[in-house]
Amino acid sequence: MRKLSLKELNRLDVDSYKQKQKHPCIIVLDNVRSALNVGSAFRTTDSFALEEIILVGITAQPPHREISKTAIGATESVSWKYMQTEAEVIDYLIEKGYKLLPIEQAAESTSLEQYEVQSDEKVALIFGNEVKGVSQTFMDAAEDCIEIPQFGTKHSLNISVSIGIISWHFVEKMIKI
Amino acid sequence: MRKLSLKELNRLDVDSYKQKQKHPCIIVLDNVRSALNVGSAFRTTDSFALEEIILVGITAQPPHREISKTAIGATESVSWKYMQTEAEVIDYLIEKGYKLLPIEQAAESTSLEQYEVQSDEKVALIFGNEVKGVSQTFMDAAEDCIEIPQFGTKHSLNISVSIGIISWHFVEKMIKI
Repeated sequence: MRKLSLKELNRLDVDSYKQKQKHPCIIVLDNVRSALNVGSAFRTTDSFALEEIILVGITAQPPHREISKTAIGATESVSWKYMQTEAEVIDYLIEKGYKLLPIEQAAESTSLEQYEVQSDEKVALIFGNEVKGVSQTFMDAAEDCIEIPQFGTKHSLNISVSIGIISWHFVEKMIKI
Repeated sequence: MRKLSLKELNRLDVDSYKQKQKHPCIIVLDNVRSALNVGSAFRTTDSFALEEIILVGITAQPPHREISKTAIGATESVSWKYMQTEAEVIDYLIEKGYKLLPIEQAAESTSLEQYEVQSDEKVALIFGNEVKGVSQTFMDAAEDCIEIPQFGTKHSLNISVSIGIISWHFVEKMIKI
């Protein structure tokens, strides 16, 4: 099987990307500690052409050396904004018509394979701090919550990996609908 | 919504995990440069209870400081083996009845959302070097190849993120079948 050359990948330039219609998913990084994880979120958001990233609380913002290390340039293409508090984020998302969807291990969570993406769905996927998880403020404001089912000794996926899995779950359905 | 406590996660101990039936997916790391990516592959393999990991060529092996950093203990639970050459890996997988499935941007690749997992499918998911991609030896030996569709300026997902996305695609179908 022949691998594609760089030229054949049809990569968009930054201007074309900015004008392109995005998949209606917003990534919310709720007090994420590692700037490397933030950079990775930018890279994945660019790949899947998601709407934007909201950085909350202590989450690092570009320009930042460690973000650049894992974003490999995606901070130039991806739209992002910073908000200090969860309350600001909730108001913004409700105003914009986005559904709050924390990714968390919770008592009433929906297991990812059971979560059916609706054709007109606009979602804000909320990823929490590496240790504390998603803030209780977001958990209280959300009507649903997604959990990635796990079967091992750790029950802990890296946040960058989780962002990839969950984003793909939505993008897959959105490109098939 | 109430977050679960650590106790409620029902994490398996290492012995119970080792005895548990695994999802029939093998992760092949083909000359992966970053030991941090190797550790992340262990963590994801544990979470999704995949069969085993095969480390090929220059790919780092446990015990290794950087692998431990991202595996957070999953090197204790996950089965793995090292093989020097692609040829050894191919013989082993064919003997074991596993289908070779490189994850690569190739001329005849199947886009991930089009790839239908069969009920009796046993797959070896092959992830290549961060720069060079999957070795041509594997590409030539494989009858099919999966590509994660991308829509941005980079057309490049981190290997740890790709392992999460692809593993979940198979595990989702396997738990639903």
